[in-house]
Amino acid sequence: MQHDFAHRLAQVADEVEALLDDLLSPQAREGETVRPGRLIEAMRYASLDGGKRLRPFLVVESARLFGGIYSGALRAACALELVHCYSLAHDDLPAMDDDDLRRGRPTVHKAFDEATAILAGDALLTYAFDVMAHEATHPDPAVRIRLVAGLARAAGPGGMAGGQMLDLMAERARDPLSRHEIETLQAMKTGALLRYAAEAGAMLGAADAAQFAALSAYGTALGAAFQIADDILDEQGDEAALGKRIAKDAGRNKATLVSLLGIPAAITLRDELVQDAENALRPFGARASILIEAARFVANRDR
Amino acid sequence: MQHDFAHRLAQVADEVEALLDDLLSPQAREGETVRPGRLIEAMRYASLDGGKRLRPFLVVESARLFGGIYSGALRAACALELVHCYSLAHDDLPAMDDDDLRRGRPTVHKAFDEATAILAGDALLTYAFDVMAHEATHPDPAVRIRLVAGLARAAGPGGMAGGQMLDLMAERARDPLSRHEIETLQAMKTGALLRYAAEAGAMLGAADAAQFAALSAYGTALGAAFQIADDILDEQGDEAALGKRIAKDAGRNKATLVSLLGIPAAITLRDELVQDAENALRPFGARASILIEAARFVANRDR
Repeated sequence: MQHDFAHRLAQVADEVEALLDDLLSPQAREGETVRPGRLIEAMRYASLDGGKRLRPFLVVESARLFGGIYSGALRAACALELVHCYSLAHDDLPAMDDDDLRRGRPTVHKAFDEATAILAGDALLTYAFDVMAHEATHPDPAVRIRLVAGLARAAGPGGMAGGQMLDLMAERARDPLSRHEIETLQAMKTGALLRYAAEAGAMLGAADAAQFAALSAYGTALGAAFQIADDILDEQGDEAALGKRIAKDAGRNKATLVSLLGIPAAITLRDELVQDAENALRPFGARASILIEAARFVANRDR
Repeated sequence: MQHDFAHRLAQVADEVEALLDDLLSPQAREGETVRPGRLIEAMRYASLDGGKRLRPFLVVESARLFGGIYSGALRAACALELVHCYSLAHDDLPAMDDDDLRRGRPTVHKAFDEATAILAGDALLTYAFDVMAHEATHPDPAVRIRLVAGLARAAGPGGMAGGQMLDLMAERARDPLSRHEIETLQAMKTGALLRYAAEAGAMLGAADAAQFAALSAYGTALGAAFQIADDILDEQGDEAALGKRIAKDAGRNKATLVSLLGIPAAITLRDELVQDAENALRPFGARASILIEAARFVANRDR
């Protein structure tokens, strides 16, 4: 099982890489004038050779619960990944988190320049909706518009972008955040896209309301577990393995559940969340085992 | 006629203002967690009390050629305006055009800070797709997904974002741009959204292919005329009336058709483009007179 999961995660990552490589080709598409070389280079730099592709994996594996067209789910998965990659490029900017290193390489504004990093992020975000809206994602326009609306909601002012704002405000605030405030911030900043990943699979699969709610609950629990694991790694992880500077949160006095509760209590909470994620998938039976593995993996990863 | 046009332009601007005010309310919508106060404030600052609302006007007046649901067209118009407002907030950033003044007020990063201006722009862009995708825009999901796809294409790497990249690269380049290069840059940077405005009206109205092509040609010509008028204003306009610094282009050695051809030849070209815009609308007859007035207005405005 564990072996199957790791194999499948790597396989989806390869497929995502290949499709992103094609989607971000330097040739202009119909309705485009030209794709400026420097912009496309920066968009590729921000998106290719990157990460575990966890969000795309959750999209395609959630969609697979329902059968359906795999190539379309992969495309939706790549659209979501483009949004994730834009958010990293912008979060790393000097005016934001001011990071020099990401996945062991210079961040986009270090490899190019600030203006190019801002524009590449803008273009990735915009292009994500282009990719999602295309009929190759799903033959039914009603499904595609639901995917688009959900992505915009998850990434917008009441989701990921809002979470980043709360995070910046927390750093400047005099008083530490309460537990509720930390949970809200994290549910928006990292949780919203992870929950959407599972929900997108349900949308692609034309899930009924109960199935949609089950995958949404799974994504919510997984997202919260992911963030606790991330915060533990920031305190205890291996900088070389992670490919980025760590212990930044403590230096910035950034409030996390780990700093608030301590590591042992945070681990207990994380494991409860993994259990919540598993419970949510019960209606799907054994078909959902790879998604359960994903939740365990997310919670226990060492990078 | 002229009077009707000015009245109608002001009326649509008021309707756009009211709807944007509602869309950007501080209360979270369904599927959102919270809308952080500072982020919504900056989004409102970037979007409200702003400009002539030319793009929204073109959307609703193009859609009116076909009848249909006015409230939906107004909503699509506001979605497009959100994209325009995001682009202004990001273009003004220190790493980009580094402007302190916009519409006579401090730019977003001056009124707030850089991080907030970046995030407000990101959130406006994302929210635009949320607004566009909502069923209140049009009852038919096929129409909505076409609107979304067109907006993403117009604003993305092969459209507006790409045009801004070309503009930044031109400033850094050793050799001046050729006429063809300037026209490409401008067709992307300002032309793409203006063309899309007219096309969006055709989409909302379920136009046939010939009608769509006619409005697309109209929007293309109007967009090119708009940019020449803008460049003339930058050389000759009244700084107080414009509410921004002018003669910046010359200072930056920015290539425009005005600097390349001289003012008299640029005026001739601009007037030919207005004629092209008029000719494109001939199939619609007298119904299109307000759009013809719009093209004349855009070309001859003094602010």
